[in-house]
Amino acid sequence: MQRLDTPLTARVTLAANIKRLRHEQGISQEALADLAHLHRTYIGSIEREERNLSLDNVERIARALGVHIAVLLTEPRDDS
Amino acid sequence: MQRLDTPLTARVTLAANIKRLRHEQGISQEALADLAHLHRTYIGSIEREERNLSLDNVERIARALGVHIAVLLTEPRDDS
Repeated sequence: MQRLDTPLTARVTLAANIKRLRHEQGISQEALADLAHLHRTYIGSIEREERNLSLDNVERIARALGVHIAVLLTEPRDDS
Repeated sequence: MQRLDTPLTARVTLAANIKRLRHEQGISQEALADLAHLHRTYIGSIEREERNLSLDNVERIARALGVHIAVLLTEPRDDS
């Protein structure tokens, strides 16, 4: 658990997971946007961690990627 | 994983987990609001599933409750 006064990190984890899953599934930002009923430029801004997006839209993206919403917010293991 | 066309459920899971953890920890909506730097009435509306809150605020509430954000979005096991 993180301290209350450290910078928020969920956006960073979310962006990394969306990019990773999108690449694994071989789909473009535009294709993901279509699946999630969102705009391509909006997906781009999420992947750049610029958006404080809503919970509903996080859930829409999770469904479009075929994963549970909690997966998108969990830091991947470091397998390096 | 849920189908794309079924109702969104993350708000329901979030509300149930916040209420459960708050009760387990014996803290009021007001105390949680203070810890998370949010307003008491805002916590109430989240617990009534009325709010499509932002990811940053979900993370603030998770920190205030001392859990990882993914925990707040994971359905509790049915131990009944």
